[in-house]
Amino acid sequence: MSGVRPTRRGVLTGAAVVGAAGIGAGSVAFAGRSPESTANAATRTVAFHGARQAGITTPAQDQLVFAAIDVTTTDASALADVLARWTEATRAMTTGAHVGGPDGIGTDPDEPAADTGEAYELHAANLTVTLGYGPSLFDGRFGLQDKRPAALQELPPLPGEQLDPTRCGGDLCLQACADDPQVAFHAVRNLLRIGRGVVAVRWMQLGFGRTASTAAGQATPRNLFGFKDGTANVRAEDTTDLDAGIFVGGPGSPAVDQEWMRDGTYLVARRIRMLIESWDRATLGEQERVVGRTKKTGAPLTGSEEFDPLDLDRTAPSGEPVIDVKAHVRLAAPETNGGAKLLRRGYSYTDGLDPVTGQLDAGLFFIAFQNDPESQFVAIQRRLGAHDAMTEYVKHVGSAVFACPPGVGPDGSWGDGLFT
Amino acid sequence: MSGVRPTRRGVLTGAAVVGAAGIGAGSVAFAGRSPESTANAATRTVAFHGARQAGITTPAQDQLVFAAIDVTTTDASALADVLARWTEATRAMTTGAHVGGPDGIGTDPDEPAADTGEAYELHAANLTVTLGYGPSLFDGRFGLQDKRPAALQELPPLPGEQLDPTRCGGDLCLQACADDPQVAFHAVRNLLRIGRGVVAVRWMQLGFGRTASTAAGQATPRNLFGFKDGTANVRAEDTTDLDAGIFVGGPGSPAVDQEWMRDGTYLVARRIRMLIESWDRATLGEQERVVGRTKKTGAPLTGSEEFDPLDLDRTAPSGEPVIDVKAHVRLAAPETNGGAKLLRRGYSYTDGLDPVTGQLDAGLFFIAFQNDPESQFVAIQRRLGAHDAMTEYVKHVGSAVFACPPGVGPDGSWGDGLFT
Repeated sequence: MSGVRPTRRGVLTGAAVVGAAGIGAGSVAFAGRSPESTANAATRTVAFHGARQAGITTPAQDQLVFAAIDVTTTDASALADVLARWTEATRAMTTGAHVGGPDGIGTDPDEPAADTGEAYELHAANLTVTLGYGPSLFDGRFGLQDKRPAALQELPPLPGEQLDPTRCGGDLCLQACADDPQVAFHAVRNLLRIGRGVVAVRWMQLGFGRTASTAAGQATPRNLFGFKDGTANVRAEDTTDLDAGIFVGGPGSPAVDQEWMRDGTYLVARRIRMLIESWDRATLGEQERVVGRTKKTGAPLTGSEEFDPLDLDRTAPSGEPVIDVKAHVRLAAPETNGGAKLLRRGYSYTDGLDPVTGQLDAGLFFIAFQNDPESQFVAIQRRLGAHDAMTEYVKHVGSAVFACPPGVGPDGSWGDGLFT
Repeated sequence: MSGVRPTRRGVLTGAAVVGAAGIGAGSVAFAGRSPESTANAATRTVAFHGARQAGITTPAQDQLVFAAIDVTTTDASALADVLARWTEATRAMTTGAHVGGPDGIGTDPDEPAADTGEAYELHAANLTVTLGYGPSLFDGRFGLQDKRPAALQELPPLPGEQLDPTRCGGDLCLQACADDPQVAFHAVRNLLRIGRGVVAVRWMQLGFGRTASTAAGQATPRNLFGFKDGTANVRAEDTTDLDAGIFVGGPGSPAVDQEWMRDGTYLVARRIRMLIESWDRATLGEQERVVGRTKKTGAPLTGSEEFDPLDLDRTAPSGEPVIDVKAHVRLAAPETNGGAKLLRRGYSYTDGLDPVTGQLDAGLFFIAFQNDPESQFVAIQRRLGAHDAMTEYVKHVGSAVFACPPGVGPDGSWGDGLFT
C-alpha cells in the first residue's frame, strides 16, 4: 500500500530538496516582510523557518493538539537544551521526516527508537508547531526575570469566567496544527518525550473544525453554535493589521521592550464551554439576536452578504437598533473596542460528558494572537463578559497566555535570544 | 467561498439523484450478498440503505464519534419513535443533507431550527452511523425480554481489565464515522437532540487515525505503539469470513435464534489505555518481541513482508520460537484461537492527561464485530489478558457490547423487527 503514494520515507529521500526550498522561503521572509510561513501544496509542508513562527497566520489546518507544559527543573541550561532539541525535531517533523533521521523508527534492537513511529508512512499534513512562554517562566527560576516583556502578564480576573485551575496556565505551550490528527499528536508526543525529566505536560487540548479562517481562500467555518465564526478575522494578507496589532515591532505596533520578542506575538488561549443543549433550545430569532448575524449566510443583520460591513447605528422601525445592543458582533467589533483586533485561530472541541450535569462538554478552544493582550483580548473580553448576550450560553473554563518568540532560521533554535 | 465547491446545499439540490443511486445500491445488497454498504467516491457518500448496516465493513473513515446511550423512559413506543426519527435524520445526513430538509438550518425566527447547523456547508464526508442495542435494553423495561438473542450477553470479567464503570455499558450505541470530525460530531449531536427526553448519553468517545483497515486498498495504519495494526483483519472482500464469522445468518454462521438479527452483528467496544510512556522507554527489540512483528514493515518476525503468514512453529538456533510464546500476534492469531476471527474497526484516542499519574491518557478505542462474542472476542481476550506480553503496556478501562441490527431499506426504520 505504501508504494502507491509518496510516503514519509519517500519524502525523506527528497529531504535535501524540500529542505532547500524551505530555507529559500525562510530567507525571503527574513529579507522582506512577507507572511511568516510559506505553505507548499505539493509536499503538504509549511516552512518551519521564517522571521515569524509558523502556525500563526498559516492557513488554519483542520486539527489541533495544544499542550501547556511546566518545567520541572530549575536548571536553565537543561531547559535551553530541550528547546534546541525541540527545534531540531520540529525541523524534521514539519518536512514529514522523523525524529532522529531516516532510521528514527529504530535499527538497534537494544535501544529505544528515536521516533515513536505512529506517523511513519504519514505525510507532513501541513504540520506546524508553535512555541510559547508563559509568564511563570520569568518568575526567577531560570534567571529570566529581566527578560520578561511588560506585555506578558497573567490575565486578570474577567467577568463571566469560571476557571478550572487544572485547565489554566503553563510555563510553556506547544500548539501543533495539522490536517491529520495523528500527525499533530505524534509531534506533541515526541516533543514531550524529548523533554522528559525537564518538562511535564500540565494540560492538553484537542481541537477539530477550525473556527476561524486565517488566510484568504479559506471559507469561514462554523462553530458548534452552527454560526460562521471568524468572518471579520485578521488574515495573513492583512499585513498592515498584522504589523500594527498582531506581531511585535512592526510599523504601528507598540514599542519593543524586549528585543528577543521582535517578530513574536502573544497567544491567549481560552477554553470556552458552550452550553449547546440550551443553545439548541433557543429559537432562530434569539440565536440571531445574540450573534448579530444571520445563521444561514453569516451576513450581519444589517446586511445581506457575509462580508458586508456591520451597521451598528441602523435602527428598525420600532426604534430599536437592528443589531442588538448586547449582540456578540457589536461588542466584539473593533469599532466598539477602540480599533482593537485579534488574529483568531480557534478550534471546536468535545471532551465527552460533563460529569456533573451529564451534558456534552463541548465548545470552542479559543486561540488569539495580538501584540498587547491588555488592550486587545482583555479589553474586549471585559466588555463581552459583562454585556454580551452570548454569555448566557458560554462559560470560560480554561485560560492561559504565552509569549510566542519569533521564528528561527536554518541554524537557529527556539531558545535563541532568551537563553543566549 | 461556498460557491467554489459543491456544498451541502448543492448536494441537497441533487438529493433526488443521490437518493436514487443509494436506493439502487441498497437494492443490489438486498438481492445478492454484496458488501452491505456502497461508497460513492464522487459524492463522498456511503449508502445508508442496505441489507447490512453501513459502518461495519465500510472502508474505515478517518474519524470516530462513538456514543453509548441510556434510555430514560420505560415507554417503548417513545423509544420506537426516536429510532424512527433517528433513521430519518441519518438518511438525510448520510447524503450530506440536513435534519429537517433544505430549511433545516431554520427559517421561522420563533422556532428552534431542526438542524444545529455546524455542518451546513460541509460534505457528507463518507458519514456512516451504525446503531447497536445493549444487553440492558432487553431487561424487561420495554417488553423486549423475549427478543434478546442468546449471543447478546454482558461480557464476563476478563483478565487484565481495570474497568471504569462510567466508561462501560449502555442501552444503545451510535457509532458515527466520517472523514471530517465536525460531520461525525454533528451527526451524534443531532441524534441526541432528537432523542432528548427519551435517551441520554452515558459515555462518549472520540477517535482518530483508524487502527485497522477494513477494505482492500486501505493501507494498514499504525496505532499509538507505532506498529501497523490490523494487518490480519477480516476485510470487506472476505465474504466467506464475513458470512461465517461476522454477520448473523450467513453460510457457516451460528444458527439464528432471533430472526430480527439476521444480517446483524455484535459490536464489542473496549477502551484500551496504552501506557505509552513505558512503551516509549522499551527497546526496539522488546517492542518487536511483544508484538511479534517488525516495527518498520509490519512483517512477522518469521517473514520479510507485511502480509507474509505467521510461522508460529519456527525456532531460532537457540531453540526458542522466533515468535515469542507470549507475542501478541501469536496469542491473537486465529490458529491459536480455534479459527476465531474478528472484524476490527478501532481508532486511536487521546483524552488529555490521567489526573492521577499526569501521564497521557491515550490508547486504542477497540471496536470489533463478530457473530458470537463468547467464542470470538471473549475467548481471544481471555487468552490475551492472561498471557500476552503486551498486557504490561495496556489496560482495558472501558467495555461494552451491542447487537447491531441489520440495515434498513428506503422505507424501513432501525426499530423494524424489534418493536414491530
